[in-house]
Amino acid sequence: MPHSITKDEVLKYHEGGKIGIAITKPCDSARDLSMAYTPGVAEPCLAIEKDPALAYRYTNKANLVAVITNGTAVLGLGDIGPWASKPVMEGKSVLFKKFANVDAFDIEIDEKDPQKLIAICKALEPTFGGINLEDIKAPECFEIEEKLKKITNIPVMHDDQHGTAIITSAGLMNALELTGKDISKMKIVVIGAGAAGIACAKMYRQLGAEEIVMLDSKGVIHSGRDDLNPYKAEFALDTTDRTLEDAMRGADMVLGLSRAGLVTKEMVASMAPDPIIFALANPVPEILPEVVAEVRDDAMMGTGRSDYPNQVNNVLGFPFIFRGALDVRATAITEGMKMAAAKALADLAKEPVPQYVKDAYGGEELAFGPDYLIPKPFDKRVLLWESAAVARAAVEEGVAQVESFDYCKYRTKLAADIGLILADPCE
Amino acid sequence: MPHSITKDEVLKYHEGGKIGIAITKPCDSARDLSMAYTPGVAEPCLAIEKDPALAYRYTNKANLVAVITNGTAVLGLGDIGPWASKPVMEGKSVLFKKFANVDAFDIEIDEKDPQKLIAICKALEPTFGGINLEDIKAPECFEIEEKLKKITNIPVMHDDQHGTAIITSAGLMNALELTGKDISKMKIVVIGAGAAGIACAKMYRQLGAEEIVMLDSKGVIHSGRDDLNPYKAEFALDTTDRTLEDAMRGADMVLGLSRAGLVTKEMVASMAPDPIIFALANPVPEILPEVVAEVRDDAMMGTGRSDYPNQVNNVLGFPFIFRGALDVRATAITEGMKMAAAKALADLAKEPVPQYVKDAYGGEELAFGPDYLIPKPFDKRVLLWESAAVARAAVEEGVAQVESFDYCKYRTKLAADIGLILADPCE
Repeated sequence: MPHSITKDEVLKYHEGGKIGIAITKPCDSARDLSMAYTPGVAEPCLAIEKDPALAYRYTNKANLVAVITNGTAVLGLGDIGPWASKPVMEGKSVLFKKFANVDAFDIEIDEKDPQKLIAICKALEPTFGGINLEDIKAPECFEIEEKLKKITNIPVMHDDQHGTAIITSAGLMNALELTGKDISKMKIVVIGAGAAGIACAKMYRQLGAEEIVMLDSKGVIHSGRDDLNPYKAEFALDTTDRTLEDAMRGADMVLGLSRAGLVTKEMVASMAPDPIIFALANPVPEILPEVVAEVRDDAMMGTGRSDYPNQVNNVLGFPFIFRGALDVRATAITEGMKMAAAKALADLAKEPVPQYVKDAYGGEELAFGPDYLIPKPFDKRVLLWESAAVARAAVEEGVAQVESFDYCKYRTKLAADIGLILADPCE
Repeated sequence: MPHSITKDEVLKYHEGGKIGIAITKPCDSARDLSMAYTPGVAEPCLAIEKDPALAYRYTNKANLVAVITNGTAVLGLGDIGPWASKPVMEGKSVLFKKFANVDAFDIEIDEKDPQKLIAICKALEPTFGGINLEDIKAPECFEIEEKLKKITNIPVMHDDQHGTAIITSAGLMNALELTGKDISKMKIVVIGAGAAGIACAKMYRQLGAEEIVMLDSKGVIHSGRDDLNPYKAEFALDTTDRTLEDAMRGADMVLGLSRAGLVTKEMVASMAPDPIIFALANPVPEILPEVVAEVRDDAMMGTGRSDYPNQVNNVLGFPFIFRGALDVRATAITEGMKMAAAKALADLAKEPVPQYVKDAYGGEELAFGPDYLIPKPFDKRVLLWESAAVARAAVEEGVAQVESFDYCKYRTKLAADIGLILADPCE
């Protein structure tokens, strides 16, 4: 564990859990109570009964996301079940609140059957303004998300899929800019065909990628295999590559979503010039940056870790994406909104980095380049850039429900939330 | 609306809702985050995976109650649906937190079918430490609660049923003491055969009542009727009473759970000596205290209102009952625990009332007697008396999961929570 945290220390930290309920209105007198509860509360109820959209006004729905799991694919821990997954989901709620002031409540559901899980989530729709699906195993997660997006009228996003896709896409965009590579001519290797692997590959296709070699535990996913679920089959290539070693030869990019040490020095040496390496296995990546450095000096590299450059951390995504989506009452999180999030992150990385961010990372000299392709989570401007971009994209894609949306005003508001005054709020 | 609150003022109060999420652990540095989330969070997950009971230790489960509704019987509003019921459920969460520091989260479920609702609640069990069912219509509510009590391992209570039963039972116990009436010889009229009516009648039976005349919208529930659901049928009497007027004649007690003005002066005049009248229709009771006073001076009366003596307010029950149940990790809320709650409230009413309570009620001289049968919600000692009694009853009834329970220590802790030091913590 980094930062020399002991197991005892961690367990102590988690005692009693990490989130609770806060009363957000005055509630000290009998008068307050008669507003909060009976008889006063009848008024907002009747108002919402007449116009259900008023639930966004008279309840906490407009700022409330469910973090829903069934505990079937938790972090690196696998199917540990809904009970044992609760510390992770509470942690996710903490991140939502801390980074974007979104109230997120964790819901652990004891149900593995996709259809039943879908029905439960759908039934919970009146409670929440959005649903963040979390740590649900593939391939069930795809069907669950797809179906819920169809049948609900609130934004639904499975973070394991799209979070990693958005953050690595941001890094990839900037790597393309720095290397001058043409994505349509790149050979991209994706190690892992679970939730994140499939979603990343889909997003890279949207960015223009044409040759994606995906691998699962049995090797390269090629058109000769008959053991593929439909989600994997979509990426089956007509290729002679069979092993990771084959796939890596001449590759321009590799995305590791597998396990420590799977990528060797030799494989990296066999990649094309200026390779992009995202080795995201946690806590130990597929290959360590210092090992890559032994065999080549032209690589751009990211990991899942905060103690190396270019940390691919989902917290750069979900809090800000939901913040933007909720603020325009989006009915969905569309492809365009996700792409806008990635683009905003990529753009922000090209801006000068404030001193407090550098300080938070040990005084590192952070400036756009191979070692700084992606903004840092503690950079408060992520809210301003990403949420504004997501909200605007929602409006452009026609999924926003607010009557009017003023991008400049919204950016001014977000800036105020993080203590900034903007020279040009419309920038 | 009392206290001259305007509709606009109430709607404004509810804007944005009334509860949010609070982070309860330090969360300011990268180090904090690596404890709250990955990689540190894996430790409590693995601990709970090995021993599910540790969920009570390493998550917020031990202090977390779901306030669950489908919006089919909301306050006096009826079947307004799950969306429109959210302000009430959030209000309930506020009361849980305010009165007993229980974290309660509102869950509005879009599902009317009892079997499906039961399945959803059961699936949510890993998330919560208890379930407060709320505003679910009768007779479905009976089946839903009964089934959930059987299939879950956490305390489940339908407040509409048991809250009113517990508070009126407390008042009734004290009225019996003051009047010297023998409950087994009393004629008790219950107007309303919904959730609360049925539950109250059951609890009065436990107190020794033998003659309970219950009425639904069609009049007296008697053995000649063939239109009764099983819950009502249990109270069908072999009687010649048909109307409310018939039933009230010679009655020792009437419990009104119906609507404003249903009980007339003449009916009250026809009751037995020293009648007990709980007229709980809200906001306007079945008969007003000043109208009762016109026809007799020997009545003891309670209403649902804070501006008359003997307010029957469920907030005297649910926060403290769940507090006690959660603190001993009770697997259920048993009849014994509910009776202990009622008894504790009745006992507390016989104690001298602190000045701050009198002040909160306009400087009223509150002392045990016909106009003070029931403690006041703002009396902080309710926590001390009721939660301690409920916890002890849970231990005695064998539903507590804590390894050891020390009543005196628990009372000392509760007293500290409300700023009291006890002369005799074991009292």
